[in-house]
Amino acid sequence: MLLLHRAVVLRLEQACRLKSIPSRICIQACSINDSFQPQRPSLTFSGDNSSTQGWRVMGTLLGLGAVLAYQDHRCRAAQESTHIYTKEEVSSHTSPETGIWVTLGSEVFDVTEFVDLHPGGPSKLMLAAGGPLEPFWALYAVHNQSHVRELLAQYKIGELNPEDKVAPTVETSDPYADDPVRHPALKVNSQRPFNAEPPPELLTENYITPNPIFFTRNHLPVPNLDPDTYRLHVVGAPGGQSLSLSLDDLHNFPKYEITVTLQCAGNRRSEMTQVKEVKGLEWRTGAISTARWAGARLCDVLAQAGHQLCETEAHVCFEGLDSDPTGTAYGASIPLARAMDPEAEVLLAYEMNGQPLPRDHGFPVRVVVPGVVGARHVKWLGRVSVQPEESYSHWQRRDYKGFSPSVDWDTVDFDSAPSIQELPVQSAITEPRDGETVESGEVTIKGYAWSGGGRAVIRVDVSLDGGLTWQVAKLDGEEQRPRKAWAWRLWQLKAPVPAGQKELNIVCKAVDDGYNVQPDTVAPIWNLRGVLSNAWHRVHVYVSP
Amino acid sequence: MLLLHRAVVLRLEQACRLKSIPSRICIQACSINDSFQPQRPSLTFSGDNSSTQGWRVMGTLLGLGAVLAYQDHRCRAAQESTHIYTKEEVSSHTSPETGIWVTLGSEVFDVTEFVDLHPGGPSKLMLAAGGPLEPFWALYAVHNQSHVRELLAQYKIGELNPEDKVAPTVETSDPYADDPVRHPALKVNSQRPFNAEPPPELLTENYITPNPIFFTRNHLPVPNLDPDTYRLHVVGAPGGQSLSLSLDDLHNFPKYEITVTLQCAGNRRSEMTQVKEVKGLEWRTGAISTARWAGARLCDVLAQAGHQLCETEAHVCFEGLDSDPTGTAYGASIPLARAMDPEAEVLLAYEMNGQPLPRDHGFPVRVVVPGVVGARHVKWLGRVSVQPEESYSHWQRRDYKGFSPSVDWDTVDFDSAPSIQELPVQSAITEPRDGETVESGEVTIKGYAWSGGGRAVIRVDVSLDGGLTWQVAKLDGEEQRPRKAWAWRLWQLKAPVPAGQKELNIVCKAVDDGYNVQPDTVAPIWNLRGVLSNAWHRVHVYVSP
Repeated sequence: MLLLHRAVVLRLEQACRLKSIPSRICIQACSINDSFQPQRPSLTFSGDNSSTQGWRVMGTLLGLGAVLAYQDHRCRAAQESTHIYTKEEVSSHTSPETGIWVTLGSEVFDVTEFVDLHPGGPSKLMLAAGGPLEPFWALYAVHNQSHVRELLAQYKIGELNPEDKVAPTVETSDPYADDPVRHPALKVNSQRPFNAEPPPELLTENYITPNPIFFTRNHLPVPNLDPDTYRLHVVGAPGGQSLSLSLDDLHNFPKYEITVTLQCAGNRRSEMTQVKEVKGLEWRTGAISTARWAGARLCDVLAQAGHQLCETEAHVCFEGLDSDPTGTAYGASIPLARAMDPEAEVLLAYEMNGQPLPRDHGFPVRVVVPGVVGARHVKWLGRVSVQPEESYSHWQRRDYKGFSPSVDWDTVDFDSAPSIQELPVQSAITEPRDGETVESGEVTIKGYAWSGGGRAVIRVDVSLDGGLTWQVAKLDGEEQRPRKAWAWRLWQLKAPVPAGQKELNIVCKAVDDGYNVQPDTVAPIWNLRGVLSNAWHRVHVYVSP
Repeated sequence: MLLLHRAVVLRLEQACRLKSIPSRICIQACSINDSFQPQRPSLTFSGDNSSTQGWRVMGTLLGLGAVLAYQDHRCRAAQESTHIYTKEEVSSHTSPETGIWVTLGSEVFDVTEFVDLHPGGPSKLMLAAGGPLEPFWALYAVHNQSHVRELLAQYKIGELNPEDKVAPTVETSDPYADDPVRHPALKVNSQRPFNAEPPPELLTENYITPNPIFFTRNHLPVPNLDPDTYRLHVVGAPGGQSLSLSLDDLHNFPKYEITVTLQCAGNRRSEMTQVKEVKGLEWRTGAISTARWAGARLCDVLAQAGHQLCETEAHVCFEGLDSDPTGTAYGASIPLARAMDPEAEVLLAYEMNGQPLPRDHGFPVRVVVPGVVGARHVKWLGRVSVQPEESYSHWQRRDYKGFSPSVDWDTVDFDSAPSIQELPVQSAITEPRDGETVESGEVTIKGYAWSGGGRAVIRVDVSLDGGLTWQVAKLDGEEQRPRKAWAWRLWQLKAPVPAGQKELNIVCKAVDDGYNVQPDTVAPIWNLRGVLSNAWHRVHVYVSP
């Protein structure tokens, strides 16, 4: 943040030196209303209280500087008659060459020259390029302030064609037609079933991922369930009783709330694809997200159905209410020992970040198995049973398993590998992005790190030279409970860019409290399904001269 | 084993072709007594029942072939008058150039030409070169059979000087003077305190490591404790009672027996030293061993003293009865949650492989903490207490922690890293050895693999080309219980040597059931104490033309 702050201030100083006198005159002429008060802005960022004052100052400078720098252009625009643009026209303006346009309500803005001054970084504003700002502003409440709207007003170039506000029509013959509307920031890897991840620069903007951009991994169409008639069937133990639980029944169990990171086994699969083709969705670094989950403990519900821990190995099988055209439901299982262990904190969750579960995330009830691969966190939960064997579901027995790089589709024996439960230690760089150009002087590197099984991340090492030398990143985010480190740590490193360096090979690797580390390279962990991709994450950037 | 068998048979066939007729005549002339019966040998190897018959045949061929091959030399030796050799003379014969001599009782043998025919492999016989066979034969009961002694008799060259049977005198001023006598197979890294590891080819010869060659990691002189007066002091909980337990008292708790692998945090440190100097003993691959441990469960003993699991984090602190000249005892701690968890199976062990603990391994009582670094398995246990903080011992707070490669002795902050408890996934190659020449055709590669925290080893990948391509090794040893995989897996791979290959870069890497893997290289996990050295293990060998 400091680096950005410094860079912005520097540019503003330059702008002020060049144009200070005429700018002030034009501010008055161009401002939409009189409430624009550059002396009293309040651009604050949550989660960083210690630097609030700094941000206030920066907001001031930013509001001022942006206006100073580009007042000529703006003045011209405001003085001309109102243009009407179609949605298509707007959507074709997504680069510095074409101009970068966005909409808010019915208004169209050309923010080309503001992009580099955006306090959250240029890349975040670019996510909205060619489309509406609302979905992004909804995520980041900092924008809903008058001075931000006033600042934006300076860039208005016209109005949106009124016909373009109509919602898209629904194809009713499509089994996915009833899927919910998704946030446009999501990078879609598959529409049917819907699979999408947040862009990296949004992913680590918040310790808790906002629901609308939480990564979504669906295997089937999203069921549309009525919460009033919803029932969870729990098969009773011999001598116990089967349960048919309404949502109210579930709410009557003691409520537990925990912060848990979910990660898809296929996260970072795209890096494996670069080694050799694999079967699977091309997840980048975003198939991971963190939420506060609340619900009943699975162990309490199982106990009410008469289940208890037994000496012989057993498994708790989950079935979703999502199903394919043959009626086969999504299914998965976890060992009974984990399910019955109060310390493992397995939840039947009905809340995600204080809200009822969104439909994409299992409304009304999903399983949350802290420390375990996403595939076992069965959504739209319909049935729970205890079996001597693992779930016979395809996704338990013929998917989500790891193999040697030597195994291909001709030789694979799915029974020879255990189903993935706990995941290995993982980390990735979310800023800067691969191929980006960074300022010389100092570079800020951000990312996430997490490990399975409740193992806490104890250190993240970052290298600027491809792994020859290392620096220790600062860990942010909540402190972790011993043995229950269910959630990720965000991290960052501010490092001087070695003088004269034209490129940087940035690498990160994390260590968990079992002192497990990430492997150096992808090829030796390559597997035909492209799962468990946890090699060092590498980003190559250029340094601006 | 098959490969070795084949190689021996091949050589024997060659020998038979060359010398079959005159040899048979000389066997009669040279044999020491008439009980030599090449038709009925019984050279069997425990732990491999299925191939007993094969070994019998091989024993026959071996006994026969060895005699056939070298009868001329032996005949000459037996016909000459008895020579007397000093211990020093024997100890100077340890190579093919000088001749390879061993002793058994008062007899001296020149086994130079038998070495390559040794059924257990030449390297194992070479461990005894220049000294007595007894310590090795004591480990491997297979040798205690008449036909083996008769075979050996063929190589007798004389008698040992009677004066050389006197035991070495004890230096009483040395605080280590009372340390026990150790097995000569151990590779000593430090005499005072005694630290030693078994050679790799013995290490994986047995799933259960024989007590005399179990790796020994002492921090201080070995106390000599009287089992009759021994007391274990357990500090009681508030409202509970402190205990002073005799060995008999400990035996009165329910007895549990489990197979647990212990590994020193410094295992394979010598590979880190090759990257950059570290502080620590130069352990090779042998600071790891496996035994059956029996004793009382720590949770039962703590419960009797009134302890129970509490919400706030607490630690069980152990003190040894070994101490330095200032009276400071060895100490370490583990989290109370692990100590009180019956599933974690923490023992106060008084038996090791069915015997009272050897003195080097903590007689009469040590802690065994399955899945956790060796340093917490406190030996010669004197005192147990529950504290709100970790042990203040040097070995808990200022040692046995991992750091980034960037941290040196000027910058290290020991408080910044957690004490090592669970260890990461590990594997190493024990055969062939680095620099060895292997036969063309097929190579047999053997090793061990283990992971901390009860995580089972699910796969070992082996490469002959430095990690470009991989093959899956066969896992031997006991099946592992879920979540309680406390013991290693031995593994082997028989692989064809690619035709025309003159050298092999053999690599192994293991995967545990959390799908943790070993890192590719040592440098990025280098740390100033040289602990946690678990990169791929690499062995470079030559292929005989």
